[in-house]
Amino acid sequence: MVNDLLAGVNAGARPGKRGLYIADIVEMLQALTPEAAAAKLGRMADVRAVAVLDRPEFTAAAEVLALLPLPRAVHLVAQMAEDRAADVLAEMDEDVAGRIFGALSPEVRTSLRRLLAWPEDSAGGMMTTEFVAARVSASVADVLDLLRTVERSRETVYSVFLLDERGCLDATISLRRLIAAAPDSPAIDLARDRTPVTVTPATDREVVADLIRRHDLLALPVVDDAGRPLGIVTVDDVLDALVAEHTEDVQKFGGVEALGRPYLETGFFEMIRKRAGWLSVLFLSEMLTASAMQHYEDELARAVVLTLFIPLIMSSGGNSGSQATSLIIRALAMGQVRLRDWWRVALRELPAGMVLGAMLGTVGFIRITAWQALGLYDYGSHWVLIATTVSAGLVGIVTFGSLAGSMLPFLLQKLGFDPASASAPFVATLVDVTGLVIYFTIALAILSGTLL
Amino acid sequence: MVNDLLAGVNAGARPGKRGLYIADIVEMLQALTPEAAAAKLGRMADVRAVAVLDRPEFTAAAEVLALLPLPRAVHLVAQMAEDRAADVLAEMDEDVAGRIFGALSPEVRTSLRRLLAWPEDSAGGMMTTEFVAARVSASVADVLDLLRTVERSRETVYSVFLLDERGCLDATISLRRLIAAAPDSPAIDLARDRTPVTVTPATDREVVADLIRRHDLLALPVVDDAGRPLGIVTVDDVLDALVAEHTEDVQKFGGVEALGRPYLETGFFEMIRKRAGWLSVLFLSEMLTASAMQHYEDELARAVVLTLFIPLIMSSGGNSGSQATSLIIRALAMGQVRLRDWWRVALRELPAGMVLGAMLGTVGFIRITAWQALGLYDYGSHWVLIATTVSAGLVGIVTFGSLAGSMLPFLLQKLGFDPASASAPFVATLVDVTGLVIYFTIALAILSGTLL
Repeated sequence: MVNDLLAGVNAGARPGKRGLYIADIVEMLQALTPEAAAAKLGRMADVRAVAVLDRPEFTAAAEVLALLPLPRAVHLVAQMAEDRAADVLAEMDEDVAGRIFGALSPEVRTSLRRLLAWPEDSAGGMMTTEFVAARVSASVADVLDLLRTVERSRETVYSVFLLDERGCLDATISLRRLIAAAPDSPAIDLARDRTPVTVTPATDREVVADLIRRHDLLALPVVDDAGRPLGIVTVDDVLDALVAEHTEDVQKFGGVEALGRPYLETGFFEMIRKRAGWLSVLFLSEMLTASAMQHYEDELARAVVLTLFIPLIMSSGGNSGSQATSLIIRALAMGQVRLRDWWRVALRELPAGMVLGAMLGTVGFIRITAWQALGLYDYGSHWVLIATTVSAGLVGIVTFGSLAGSMLPFLLQKLGFDPASASAPFVATLVDVTGLVIYFTIALAILSGTLL
Repeated sequence: MVNDLLAGVNAGARPGKRGLYIADIVEMLQALTPEAAAAKLGRMADVRAVAVLDRPEFTAAAEVLALLPLPRAVHLVAQMAEDRAADVLAEMDEDVAGRIFGALSPEVRTSLRRLLAWPEDSAGGMMTTEFVAARVSASVADVLDLLRTVERSRETVYSVFLLDERGCLDATISLRRLIAAAPDSPAIDLARDRTPVTVTPATDREVVADLIRRHDLLALPVVDDAGRPLGIVTVDDVLDALVAEHTEDVQKFGGVEALGRPYLETGFFEMIRKRAGWLSVLFLSEMLTASAMQHYEDELARAVVLTLFIPLIMSSGGNSGSQATSLIIRALAMGQVRLRDWWRVALRELPAGMVLGAMLGTVGFIRITAWQALGLYDYGSHWVLIATTVSAGLVGIVTFGSLAGSMLPFLLQKLGFDPASASAPFVATLVDVTGLVIYFTIALAILSGTLL
């Protein structure tokens, strides 16, 4: 719910006698067992209980509501913000949700059914149907009167939809301009040459967030194909959506399927399931490294010294790859780079990888030389050739890592996947197999006739 | 600047004759050279040019302003939102910034100087000084009159500060409650038992964002130590801050120092610098793998077959580690897990790692058995022992990876670092060295007397 500065429509959003903010009460209840939380919530005044239930941070809401006596649960759900009520009902056991739903008034049922039809991460799933609409012919005073009447029952009153005769969205006007205008002037004058930015219910939440951010909006109208308003997405829902996206992106980049709920509240086996998928896929792909190594078995047996640097070289490729991937994932998400820019990125990553690889290669060369010179380890009479192999391998693999890591998100986007699925482990695996081939090819070229 | 639904204080925020939104104009200008953008901006009406300059997405603002004739630049800067003007001046060449600054009116200079004193990622750097304040004794009508007067010159009018005799923030009231209240009632009644949530200018932007989100605010007052209001942070600035944090987190997790500007606009050598630091640190740490391998040189020479599985085993440890790290970084950032919960996390990750490790271990065992049975590769007469070594190694390393990956963010937070610095490459490196030791220890235990 969009509250105002430090406050809300809702008396319950204020700290009560004991000076607790709703956010603090939510935190306190979250720490309790569902039964204890239900008991506490059951004793709260309606207005406060509703304010608590309205917070998306109160993830136990569905469970707690199910534990309350049915009439009380129905009474509270009916007063909740509709978008939140729909989310909570969707989370509930179907039986309980059905019983609560059946006891609600027909009007509430209709608008909840409309909200429940859309996935949670779409504009339809984020919107509330509690918007304020006036006729396009209304005067400023008419609209202000309307706002005064509905102020306590609407999620946001800072913007008003003006509808034409067919009920289609013609313009939106803002409360701030309304209060500054002459009362008898036509409200439409405050919105003269405007074409409202709108979305359809199916619009993805990332696009909604981006539009609200780009256009500095407090709310965004959701309209049907004919242009009739269905609901409104408010900036606070977008904040929550952005934070959820952030969490998903970090988890995906770490190679986990998004958990969707707090870590400690995720069941043990659910967590295993969300991790096992990617881990197994990566493991199976990484098995190719064993095959690659088998292919170079003879070389390995003849020059065991080469194996000493395999982890070092492979990890450097993976690291440069995951750097490049993280840069490109965000650049794509922010629209700073488009699909058609792939070649511009490739032309940057190729020299960048070479410079970084040359740096690491130099350090690697110095390391081998130093250990040899100081007598810390004996790489044999061909140590210069070995140092050269390792250095050249680093240049090759770091360059390949940067290039592969930067191109993978483009490829995924092109194939219709989320570029953010290009996780660090995914890139590392991709680079590992190729990296081994690069390393042994270079080794064969340099050491052939001496060690190999 | 907080505009209203699809609109703004600013006439220029509306699409003009050609139906372009400011956001689209910004995008168009960004694609031009600074000179061409300056020429276009120079021909725009003031109100539109200011609306464009006010957008944080217009990253070329500083450069473009510097190219305009000084009087025009000064004229535009004076009309910009103060928080944005301060950011743009801070980005400019000192010479040019100094000349523009010197030509501004003393009042604007004073408030800009106050904003420039705070780092960009603090509440002081995000706030604007254009808030609306009234006496605590004012009536609802008084406050509404005040709002009507200042509506066009203030960034947000949706909340009003009520100040006591000493000029300290006593309460905040919202425009929506003001319009619904009786005009002659005291404004303070609309805020009765409220204690405003406030921050100081030094508060970190992550905390500001979290407060605005938790309390569903449209704006947050920034006060000095005595409680006098200095400015206000609006929800749209927080949206921008959240997106910036998101980018930083993904980049950090990928092992890159945060770029701070769009990928393609970052200079080549600056990008190298931001990547080389971590890459070198990780490379130097990863050199320990070479030392660990050297330590097991005899074993390697006797059982080259063991080396075949080194990349597979090491990467599995790194992958399970980066999964655990990504989960814990976000759980810590969202406050779902606190520092004191480390043992609860450890008690989950230990069995989770064992289960996941057992899964991969089983697949690994089957892989070796299958290759041996199908005659794809001959692991020798001790192939069962080798398969057992690889499986046991996987269990050990995946368990260690999950545990190390989940504890690293706690350790970093405890030491005062950002837990988000626990990048996937960092975790992989940590796990690689230990993983080798685990693998060879298990190999010695199982194969001693046969292969070793």
